[in-house]
Amino acid sequence: MRQHVSIAGVGYTAVGEHWERSLADLALEAIQAALADARLGPGDVDALVVGNALASLFSSQAHLGPIIAAHAGLHGIEALRIEGADAAGGLALRSGAALISSGTAQTVVVVGVEKTTDCLGPERVSALATLLDAEYEAVHGITPTAVAGLLMRRYMHAYGLEMDDFEGFSINAHQNGSQNPKAMFRNQIKPGRFAAAPMVADPVNLFDVAPEADGAAAVVLTANEQIIQQIPMPIRVVGSAAATDSLALHQREDMLFLRAVNLAAGRAFEQAGITPGQVDILEAHDAYTVLTALQLEAAGFAEKGQGWRLAAENRISRDGDLPVSTFGGLKARGNPLGATGVYQVAEITLQLRGEADDLQVPGEPQLGMALNLGGLGSTATTHLLERVDR
Amino acid sequence: MRQHVSIAGVGYTAVGEHWERSLADLALEAIQAALADARLGPGDVDALVVGNALASLFSSQAHLGPIIAAHAGLHGIEALRIEGADAAGGLALRSGAALISSGTAQTVVVVGVEKTTDCLGPERVSALATLLDAEYEAVHGITPTAVAGLLMRRYMHAYGLEMDDFEGFSINAHQNGSQNPKAMFRNQIKPGRFAAAPMVADPVNLFDVAPEADGAAAVVLTANEQIIQQIPMPIRVVGSAAATDSLALHQREDMLFLRAVNLAAGRAFEQAGITPGQVDILEAHDAYTVLTALQLEAAGFAEKGQGWRLAAENRISRDGDLPVSTFGGLKARGNPLGATGVYQVAEITLQLRGEADDLQVPGEPQLGMALNLGGLGSTATTHLLERVDR
Repeated sequence: MRQHVSIAGVGYTAVGEHWERSLADLALEAIQAALADARLGPGDVDALVVGNALASLFSSQAHLGPIIAAHAGLHGIEALRIEGADAAGGLALRSGAALISSGTAQTVVVVGVEKTTDCLGPERVSALATLLDAEYEAVHGITPTAVAGLLMRRYMHAYGLEMDDFEGFSINAHQNGSQNPKAMFRNQIKPGRFAAAPMVADPVNLFDVAPEADGAAAVVLTANEQIIQQIPMPIRVVGSAAATDSLALHQREDMLFLRAVNLAAGRAFEQAGITPGQVDILEAHDAYTVLTALQLEAAGFAEKGQGWRLAAENRISRDGDLPVSTFGGLKARGNPLGATGVYQVAEITLQLRGEADDLQVPGEPQLGMALNLGGLGSTATTHLLERVDR
Repeated sequence: MRQHVSIAGVGYTAVGEHWERSLADLALEAIQAALADARLGPGDVDALVVGNALASLFSSQAHLGPIIAAHAGLHGIEALRIEGADAAGGLALRSGAALISSGTAQTVVVVGVEKTTDCLGPERVSALATLLDAEYEAVHGITPTAVAGLLMRRYMHAYGLEMDDFEGFSINAHQNGSQNPKAMFRNQIKPGRFAAAPMVADPVNLFDVAPEADGAAAVVLTANEQIIQQIPMPIRVVGSAAATDSLALHQREDMLFLRAVNLAAGRAFEQAGITPGQVDILEAHDAYTVLTALQLEAAGFAEKGQGWRLAAENRISRDGDLPVSTFGGLKARGNPLGATGVYQVAEITLQLRGEADDLQVPGEPQLGMALNLGGLGSTATTHLLERVDR
């Protein structure tokens, strides 16, 4: 990017089942919180980028740009919606940063929002299946979680693993989520209980899969020096990249290697001039434990087939050498699909500012990384954020 | 924008009912044609931006970025989908230009694609209704065309007009479409026949409303000087802007003034340093004749309440002082929703290059303008293109 983009403010709703609230209402709460955090008003905003996966199906509402802009009092500004399954949030952040870096806008609000509870039962299953390849996957009746089941079985087979080997990911996520007041799940998972959870799509069980949920998160991006000067601690976007792989699993060169993650992470590391070892916190897209293991491998934090060890060896807790899912991740904070990527960046921002309260990672983290995936890694976005000390 | 973006190639499919072809297949044809026109191959492309309105509902396929990237042989690149109702194509062009201008990419393919014939009957009506405000409009059972009927009636009432006063728009569009081999409709509309057409949503009739259709159009954007040097006539994007207004008609300050068009056109004119009088060709979003009249007014080509006169006075034909819809527009070329904005820019490119064959506007046009709207003007994008003489 030609111009440095900074995060001036973040805000988000609690994640969960918001039966009584609309999509625009959730977005509004997040946008207002982020603008307040940045000490800005609606008049300071040049553009709005909305990340959302399924509102057309979930809420019979497409064309979210003008709906949310008007609801948030952002009258007349440019507004658009990015769709990229669960990676919509990360893609929206990239679009917001590009609008600024291209000189088109000075200050952009990026909001990720998903309202899942408008759509229930078979319709919800059908809606989620549109995130897969319609002609080669969904047509056979398979769902995203069932595809994850196939992927996990393959991973276990290739590396000779048992269910217990994955439990560290979920135990860590719930441990963190239990201290996050905005998390959907605050129960802890006891060691040894993971493998015995009720089955969802063999071998993916209830303690393995992250829950789809309602939520909205917003981030104020800016290159306006006056705005940056007046906030206590701006966070700089030092890397931002995206890449793709085939949507259908069987069309990938190696289904146990997330090529899109590898490409996106590599590009972001190159932009920032750093190596994986320099990352202090990682928000991974832990929709399924096997997906976290594969991300750690593809992004350079572990050798191929070794990603699960980081959890098994307890290295991903808040006082470990690579804290992962520090606010509970998708698994415990919850997975509001198109909002997830924006939650990740908001949470990293709080960690780098030292404002994560009970969830604060010790040792003043300087550099955080977000991996946001869609369609089991067919879209991957990476953001690297750095604390700017004055 | 910090860096000039040029159009290196364009390509599109015929518009119509492509029963036997998939969305990805239509996109592929357009992308291949555009790359061939630019004398480039898939390896030269850094990113793909997809403009699409309704594939989640029409074809049960969300997450179009990786689907189309892989199908077009653009393996591993960044790919994302922009959704903004019928303005998705124009928004996608803006995102593509921003990726280049921000320094993230050098060469980007923007493809607009819509496959409407996967979805028929009541499901199609429901799908189209998601482009309106779900809570204030669609909930009452109204459709986009019915909203256009209300708008047209209001316009006629305010300015004391009859149906005949609008016929010039459709006569012109069909006159141009009749000579466009890629147009959906090639019949001409005889003067005096317009007002008697079968009614769709009073007063909008069959000769007033543009047909939704299948189609894909692609544009290759680049800032790579080597690529620009090797093509005969690069076309420069000298203005690009977007704006929004309330989605629901009744929430707008003045429903007979398209504020989003006014804002977007004003910004684009300012970027290019020109006035409306300097525009040689206008591709308007002529989904309904009243929408064209209102666009001409909001963009500065006519006084308020006078937009219809440009057609009534025959000033919009190819040899008039402001040629409009030179390839048939949405009305005759057809309206492939999220692809429409990309068709407009591709068609202007051909006009500026002097390659519009039977449709060529005389006098070597230098400057073309595209107005792409979504949700009856709640999203508006403007592009200004200029011929670069060497």
